[in-house]
Amino acid sequence: MSMTYDKAHELKDALEQSEEFKALHELHAQIEADEIAKKMLENFRKLQLDLQQKQMQGIQISEEEAQQAQQQFELVQQHELISKLMEAEQQLSVIITELNKIITEPLEKIYGDPSQEQ
Amino acid sequence: MSMTYDKAHELKDALEQSEEFKALHELHAQIEADEIAKKMLENFRKLQLDLQQKQMQGIQISEEEAQQAQQQFELVQQHELISKLMEAEQQLSVIITELNKIITEPLEKIYGDPSQEQ
Ligand SMILES: [Ca+2]
Ligand SMILES: [Ca+2]
Repeated sequence: MSMTYDKAHELKDALEQSEEFKALHELHAQIEADEIAKKMLENFRKLQLDLQQKQMQGIQISEEEAQQAQQQFELVQQHELISKLMEAEQQLSVIITELNKIITEPLEKIYGDPSQEQ
Repeated sequence: MSMTYDKAHELKDALEQSEEFKALHELHAQIEADEIAKKMLENFRKLQLDLQQKQMQGIQISEEEAQQAQQQFELVQQHELISKLMEAEQQLSVIITELNKIITEPLEKIYGDPSQEQ
């Protein structure tokens, strides 16, 4: 098993040195240094989190709340740095999903591919 | 990024060749070949899944259902093959959680360690 952990650390290093990770890191640092962008993003994240928590608790989201979230989203999208950050986050999220899919392939041999199930 | 994917494939190979994975694979094959064990495990998984789905939907689980699940769990635990399989699954689950923790360490540099949050 130590081989497996060694390989996980090598993967972590490769991810850390990837252009995609470095781009995200740099954008995040730029936003941290920009008080207005930072505050804007924080407010947006808080709104998103509130709505997610409501959904997880099975609480119906009102039309007003959905509209407010959409407006906030359009607002932050117009901020170039934030918009770039979100794009970079989306890219990294896709990569990490793909990495997880590769790593857990051996389990599919045992249990089958869950994405193929009903 | 291709370096990252190469490393993910190396990690997958290492996991597949690990004693822990091979043990799980072998136990699963033994159960598949044993009609009674297979049926017993299927029934137990189905019961577990039903209860999980109820919980996710926020449906209260009755005392009777909880008791039934506990009895079923004790029953399958007494089947040596199934009990070994569950232990092997638990071991692999811990390993995969640890691998994920290693791989996503770079993200902690950006966002902080979520396990340290309130
Ligand atoms: Ca099977
Ligand atoms: Ca930060």
